Amino acid sequence: MFTCNKKSVEEKIKKFSQIGDDHRGGITRYSLSKEDEMARDYFVERMKEIGAIITTDDFANMYATLPGSDPTKKGIVMASHIDSVKNGGNYDGVLGVISAMEVLQTIKRENIPHERNITAMIWTNEEGSLYPPAIMVSGMLTSPYLPPEIAKNYEVEKMMNSKSVIDNKTTFREALSKFKYLGTKENRLSSDKYIAMFEAHIEQGPILEANKNDIGVVKCVLGMVNYTIRAVGEANHAGTTPMSYRKDALFAMSKVIQIIHEELDKLPSDLVYTTGQLSIHPNVHTVIPDEVSIMIDIRHESPDVIAEAVKVLNNLPKEVYGCHIEVEVGWTRDTVYFDKQLVNFIEQSVKELGYKYQFINSGAGHDAQFASYMLPTAMIFAPSAGGRSHCDEEYTSLDHCTMLASVLLNAVLKCDKE
Amino acid sequence: MFTCNKKSVEEKIKKFSQIGDDHRGGITRYSLSKEDEMARDYFVERMKEIGAIITTDDFANMYATLPGSDPTKKGIVMASHIDSVKNGGNYDGVLGVISAMEVLQTIKRENIPHERNITAMIWTNEEGSLYPPAIMVSGMLTSPYLPPEIAKNYEVEKMMNSKSVIDNKTTFREALSKFKYLGTKENRLSSDKYIAMFEAHIEQGPILEANKNDIGVVKCVLGMVNYTIRAVGEANHAGTTPMSYRKDALFAMSKVIQIIHEELDKLPSDLVYTTGQLSIHPNVHTVIPDEVSIMIDIRHESPDVIAEAVKVLNNLPKEVYGCHIEVEVGWTRDTVYFDKQLVNFIEQSVKELGYKYQFINSGAGHDAQFASYMLPTAMIFAPSAGGRSHCDEEYTSLDHCTMLASVLLNAVLKCDKE
Repeated sequence: MFTCNKKSVEEKIKKFSQIGDDHRGGITRYSLSKEDEMARDYFVERMKEIGAIITTDDFANMYATLPGSDPTKKGIVMASHIDSVKNGGNYDGVLGVISAMEVLQTIKRENIPHERNITAMIWTNEEGSLYPPAIMVSGMLTSPYLPPEIAKNYEVEKMMNSKSVIDNKTTFREALSKFKYLGTKENRLSSDKYIAMFEAHIEQGPILEANKNDIGVVKCVLGMVNYTIRAVGEANHAGTTPMSYRKDALFAMSKVIQIIHEELDKLPSDLVYTTGQLSIHPNVHTVIPDEVSIMIDIRHESPDVIAEAVKVLNNLPKEVYGCHIEVEVGWTRDTVYFDKQLVNFIEQSVKELGYKYQFINSGAGHDAQFASYMLPTAMIFAPSAGGRSHCDEEYTSLDHCTMLASVLLNAVLKCDKE
Repeated sequence: MFTCNKKSVEEKIKKFSQIGDDHRGGITRYSLSKEDEMARDYFVERMKEIGAIITTDDFANMYATLPGSDPTKKGIVMASHIDSVKNGGNYDGVLGVISAMEVLQTIKRENIPHERNITAMIWTNEEGSLYPPAIMVSGMLTSPYLPPEIAKNYEVEKMMNSKSVIDNKTTFREALSKFKYLGTKENRLSSDKYIAMFEAHIEQGPILEANKNDIGVVKCVLGMVNYTIRAVGEANHAGTTPMSYRKDALFAMSKVIQIIHEELDKLPSDLVYTTGQLSIHPNVHTVIPDEVSIMIDIRHESPDVIAEAVKVLNNLPKEVYGCHIEVEVGWTRDTVYFDKQLVNFIEQSVKELGYKYQFINSGAGHDAQFASYMLPTAMIFAPSAGGRSHCDEEYTSLDHCTMLASVLLNAVLKCDKE
């Protein structure tokens, strides 16, 4: 068994946490920003040191490759992202890239023989924080392999015209065309060149920590549906309209949210659902709201459980406190299972290293879920302290970060032998 | 008894509804806008026709005065506003100005003798739609007469720096300095010059219509409190956080809204309360909300009932679904009773005209409530169809509009004799 070097991992975590430092404990590093460029400069510098070959594709995805001894064999890629949400943490995404860099450095340092090319890869624009949506580039790159109802959400022309949420003007296309690391199409990740993709990542949830486990062997990315629920009432003056005359859309929506929790909580307890987004009209303190919409996001491994949850939404009362209730599907995606053989390589590696582990599902979306439609793919999780993520408090201990890299290293080496 | 002319009222309603026409049935006519200027041009043109003397003050309030036969006597002013909310209706405010114009035209046409100066007045920026807050100018003008805790909300320097909600740059002061009808301080409404102010207005509620009454004789403007209620939870990832680990601020707030309705509905049924404004953070569909705030507006004539309602807010649970609940007072104002003698003039006029009427409270705020601290003041309401206001559907029948003007005319003539 090989293990990665804790000091070397620590140095990288520190370095990346300074590039886009938000001075609150975390970072803001949008894809295709100046900070993104600086982080990639560092990646290139460290990878060139060990003789890795650097290429970039037409989406600015970056690849650092240590050539294997058998050029006829397909390569292995270890990929994640280095962009963050606004005021995000120092681990989400970047820890996967750090782990991949660490694997290559360890192979070089320990002079570990390998037949296949081994590549550390950076996906562009995973978070979609500046140019929505999330997992945009993996969606475009793998779209020929995706089910049509998913692929249509990542149509290249539409994605390229995604506008900056800051200036509402600059398109993803424009930002890409000016980006230092823009490359060419033939360098894209493909199943012709690669036999497998691994993504190491933080859990972003509390399960590994609660179970005192060091590593999560990820079985799947949960299926998910997204619905919009709308309450339509009547706007009226707050001071002049007796209570009995009102059709208050916020009052109605507050009841709908209570009903949703009451009913969905009857389903299996590992179902997760979130009403994170709400809009209210006219949103003036002296006017009774006439329209309130929420978006609900529901995730579970089993399509049957998802179907039951959707039934709850469709069975919501059509009228609440005089307001009309409308339910509309946004999008749905099925559970994506990772490649059994790769998952097995990961499990064997964790066992041999003697780390405590468990199988786990990913509730979050990742580039790996799209890559898995194109080539065998798997993910490895490290624990997130308190389950916190996408915030300054996001934290994974250095021991766990190093274990994550070590598991990745051994899994890749097992795959190399196949 | 004198009555106003229906055709003449109709002509004015039509004319004003074209100035700022939003082509949806209503108008958008912000104070100090081009549309405001055009509406005032029309006011000036019609008032000059009957020989009224036009003056404007340093807040751009406008006055059209028919001189009375006894210059030693104080005058009577009939005032309302011509600005609107965004996509407002064709009656709120402007009908009071139309009624005042109609009174002066009728006095001229019928050659009705009067000892006192009689003035039609336009208040600047009643709605506060572009430059908040509402009833801003009457607040500034009467502030020496207001209770200190109210006056402090209308401090001139602060109001003058109120920024346009559209460009977030232009101040009320700048807009005022460029406005065609800016005048001088000595022209301001004052208790030295006037003995009484009347404001004719639409009800903006459904009570007169429901009771099949033509006119509301307004007793008071309801006391009101404004509180902010905040639920503070914890932001986490929608896909990776099991339900039992969540502190969902929107779920908590939905429960708080339910509790508020349950408890406040036990109080007298003429209490009105509204949660019209809500903010949610971070408002992203994949993130559990960590903070949701609502503003609640509570109105009732009796300070005891208001106190009971406030007790309900202060007794809200301090923790709901793991979220911390905070309650904070925004502002409070007492019920303002109108001048008994003026109210009596209005009631006598309605009776003599044979219209169906009732006493009513105003749930909405009006310039008249501030004016009443400075000089005897009273209001008259016309019915609002369906109780709708601040929207395109706002409507008052032409018959009711004309009745409103006729009542105003006769009440003013009674006052003239005092």
